[in-house]
Amino acid sequence: MQTNRFEHPLNERVRIYLRLESLIRQMTHASQLSDQWQHQVFFRALFDLLEILDQVQLKTELAKDLEKQRARLKNWLNAEGVDQTALLELLDNMDMAHHKLIAATRLGQDLRDDRFLSGIRQRFSIPGGSCCFDLPALHHWLHLPLAHKQNDIANWLKQLAEMTFALNLWLRFTRESGQLQPQIARGGFFQHDAENAHLLRLHICPSYGVYPMISGHRSRFAIRFLPFEEGATIADNIEFQLAIC
Amino acid sequence: MQTNRFEHPLNERVRIYLRLESLIRQMTHASQLSDQWQHQVFFRALFDLLEILDQVQLKTELAKDLEKQRARLKNWLNAEGVDQTALLELLDNMDMAHHKLIAATRLGQDLRDDRFLSGIRQRFSIPGGSCCFDLPALHHWLHLPLAHKQNDIANWLKQLAEMTFALNLWLRFTRESGQLQPQIARGGFFQHDAENAHLLRLHICPSYGVYPMISGHRSRFAIRFLPFEEGATIADNIEFQLAIC
Repeated sequence: MQTNRFEHPLNERVRIYLRLESLIRQMTHASQLSDQWQHQVFFRALFDLLEILDQVQLKTELAKDLEKQRARLKNWLNAEGVDQTALLELLDNMDMAHHKLIAATRLGQDLRDDRFLSGIRQRFSIPGGSCCFDLPALHHWLHLPLAHKQNDIANWLKQLAEMTFALNLWLRFTRESGQLQPQIARGGFFQHDAENAHLLRLHICPSYGVYPMISGHRSRFAIRFLPFEEGATIADNIEFQLAIC
Repeated sequence: MQTNRFEHPLNERVRIYLRLESLIRQMTHASQLSDQWQHQVFFRALFDLLEILDQVQLKTELAKDLEKQRARLKNWLNAEGVDQTALLELLDNMDMAHHKLIAATRLGQDLRDDRFLSGIRQRFSIPGGSCCFDLPALHHWLHLPLAHKQNDIANWLKQLAEMTFALNLWLRFTRESGQLQPQIARGGFFQHDAENAHLLRLHICPSYGVYPMISGHRSRFAIRFLPFEEGATIADNIEFQLAIC
């Protein structure tokens, strides 16, 4: 059965992590330039990502979060029923991610300083501003052999490798920290406590024709299901699955 | 032999026409949603296009330009060596494009009023702002069957059909109004008159490793070729092809 999956961050930091993860996924997906306009997806995501990094001290925050996660996982050392080999490997990975992140220069700095990228970054935000007369240097780059462009993109992505590694690790274990449980929203509404949680994951059957509007923060959250089609009525009882992570 | 092709508008109106044409091409290309992130290209281009239409009185300007072009083409009626059947068909097409454009409601108005589109338009400009928690309605839409989504997109594109038809016709005949001529830029520089011209088309061999920075307006323009690689020297004489349209 098809399931519509939603996620919702319960604090501002996780909101930024999820945005960055989505942008890195877009960049990675578009990095092969297998489609005529994929460079638009790549550059737009890259410049959005740099704008986010300009606004937040991501490195320190993410390093702190990784350390906290590692400390919690350490509680499982020598616990019965826990695969100790896998746990030790994971703790090693987290340690490595933390060290690499701390050792990295300012996140995205080489990308900010790149002559080609900084030359096209500003114009890219003008509506329709990536035409050849707006950005002749980009247009020249687009004419280069595919392997050359893929190589450039691989190098740009490499500048974000430490961040990507740490971010993926933290998000993976945060997501795995909560189990999906069946829930019912009566009259389209559901609320619950979420002490110290970071993130909600929600699965719902598309046949309800609704999507969730979620509000809330660390300690409590509320979900209101809205009909996608204007004026449609929604089911009295909406069954869905929810993980509080 | 591979050729790098550039275009440059010689007035603000044509600059807007070329931007709109590029955005419509992106939307049309992405309309099949054959790729996981193509919706990003589609919606971004659509919202950029609406922003441009908000700023300019495109309908009146484009209708006037079409009429002028039609009047010029009429001079070829009964001229020797001109295919009269083709010319008459073309004049008919232009007449139709003009009438349809004039008869259309405010360009893009139905798209502006669309509940779904206007609901996602604003958040789309936030860096990384198209995540599922920012735009749950979009996320629900993305889960709909492909045929449903393609149908929605086809309907949205249909709202722009009159504009697209008129724009493509005007640009096609403007481009065809000038022939490519061989030119030489000495010391990377070239300048020329362009009385009443709308648009430059420039073809250059990629092996020079240069791209053109063009400045100018209706009466005169200058082209300076810049090396793509920082610090690279450029050829004393750069041969290229140029059409003044």
